[in-house]
Amino acid sequence: MTGPLFIAGDWGTSHLRLYLCGEAGVIDRKTGPGAVGAAEPHAAILMSRIQPWIDRHGPLPVLLCGMVGSRNGWVEAPYAPCPAGAADLRRLAVALEVQGLKVAIVPGVAGQNPRGAPDVMRGEEAQIIGAIRLAPELGQGRRLVCHPGTHAKWAVIEDGRITGFQTAMTGELFALLRDHSTLGRVGGEAATPGDGFALGLARAEETAEAGLLHALFETRSRQLIDGWGAAFAMDFLSGLLIGADVGGALAQFGREAGEVALIGDPALAERYGRALARRGVAVRSLSGEDCALAGLVAIFETGKDAPHVAR
Amino acid sequence: MTGPLFIAGDWGTSHLRLYLCGEAGVIDRKTGPGAVGAAEPHAAILMSRIQPWIDRHGPLPVLLCGMVGSRNGWVEAPYAPCPAGAADLRRLAVALEVQGLKVAIVPGVAGQNPRGAPDVMRGEEAQIIGAIRLAPELGQGRRLVCHPGTHAKWAVIEDGRITGFQTAMTGELFALLRDHSTLGRVGGEAATPGDGFALGLARAEETAEAGLLHALFETRSRQLIDGWGAAFAMDFLSGLLIGADVGGALAQFGREAGEVALIGDPALAERYGRALARRGVAVRSLSGEDCALAGLVAIFETGKDAPHVAR
Repeated sequence: MTGPLFIAGDWGTSHLRLYLCGEAGVIDRKTGPGAVGAAEPHAAILMSRIQPWIDRHGPLPVLLCGMVGSRNGWVEAPYAPCPAGAADLRRLAVALEVQGLKVAIVPGVAGQNPRGAPDVMRGEEAQIIGAIRLAPELGQGRRLVCHPGTHAKWAVIEDGRITGFQTAMTGELFALLRDHSTLGRVGGEAATPGDGFALGLARAEETAEAGLLHALFETRSRQLIDGWGAAFAMDFLSGLLIGADVGGALAQFGREAGEVALIGDPALAERYGRALARRGVAVRSLSGEDCALAGLVAIFETGKDAPHVAR
Repeated sequence: MTGPLFIAGDWGTSHLRLYLCGEAGVIDRKTGPGAVGAAEPHAAILMSRIQPWIDRHGPLPVLLCGMVGSRNGWVEAPYAPCPAGAADLRRLAVALEVQGLKVAIVPGVAGQNPRGAPDVMRGEEAQIIGAIRLAPELGQGRRLVCHPGTHAKWAVIEDGRITGFQTAMTGELFALLRDHSTLGRVGGEAATPGDGFALGLARAEETAEAGLLHALFETRSRQLIDGWGAAFAMDFLSGLLIGADVGGALAQFGREAGEVALIGDPALAERYGRALARRGVAVRSLSGEDCALAGLVAIFETGKDAPHVAR
């Protein structure tokens, strides 16, 4: 058995998750807050977390992904163009040297949506590469992946590389409408999707032609006229938006994949899974954290002479 | 020539427009702030404005429309059901007596959108009745009317009565996205619609199937990748939303009307006019203020024995 091979880090706007990786898998981990763009220098934040590992195991290489590579992060890692696979991300990673350590930051990915408009992702690309490592059949043929969230990303994988994707502002729009519009200002949605959510999904299908602008106001009029409670109304709104997101994605990317891989928050994945099931599409759910780690390992392994890490 | 017949008032959330009406038309007018639901009692606000007219002409009847009849207004005037014409609105007006004056408040209208969901309007109904008075052909057959704004209302008039309508949250969503989302926070849109607006209209057509959620992010990605300026991007967003609103309305209400009557703000009517022209639909623009006054006159005239006012 050999010692640690490298340190993997997923560094987003609110978290820093570090993993000490060896051939047999993860040896140790440190998870905590670590906002990109905070006042403390990124190098100092990183070193304060990994120093004990370095002291014990020597100068290990470090591979980071996420918003740490954004314009407002540590060093900007320019977007890799589609098609982008593990080797492309490794090749275009930005290299730094910090106190004798080799640190590399994975780039984001720039692509086009189905209408030719530019689109960008940063952080999701490592998760997608990781999803393929965890479920190798995702690396075969054409596959559709979805990251639900503030900016939901729908990505197409072809033979293991990201070939195109599309951002939907579903989560951001839900939060805006709930917290700042005449539809909401009433507190949260139900913790688990209920009858309101199901009704919202149905309405999203019925209103596909009329569009979201003409569907939204029902959230308010039913409260005024039909006595809907606020929590029910917000659950309806969630169904309306997620249903519209899923309907629009399937219209653009097609259903032929037969299955959508959902990466991320389990509660949101549950909602997206229901919306997709309604339209006859199966899902497989993967943890965003597991995918990010597996992606960093996969990207590390494509490096020349990099030894492999057990799955 | 006779003296004044009645006082008409359009009382909204931010304005109070009062008109002294006689057989020959408007004799005098007082326009000013007068927020519904303000601390000062509504009766006191009204009397302070019209006292000079009453002193001179005696106890004239007063007919009011707008948010003054809402739950948070002076007295709630319950919604009239569709179909609703001038006589229906007069019959269901709520009557008050204030210092010897007969005051009546026009109800809002409750209807159903094309999918059977309830919808409500308050204030727009008087403008629609007024549009028919100003352009009598709108009272013949089936006509489509649009009030652009925070909550755009699309209404169908059949033989002079409102038979159904649909609220689209177009203006509210634009303001939310401009002021509170990752797309905006950059200042205003262009004062007059330009190339960005035209591109937004085109994109709204191309993305009808994908839907708004999948179209919005281009507003940001083009700023990040293609160097769009903020004003251009906001003009694009305006075109995207107004184009989606118009497309959804025509999909639901059909184009057979051949023409849409636009009531309200001229700058917004200009944008809606361009969006409708792109889809081959002619428009006629009417002033919201003129329509509200004409509507109050028309509703007043349906009263038993009420003498008529010149157009």
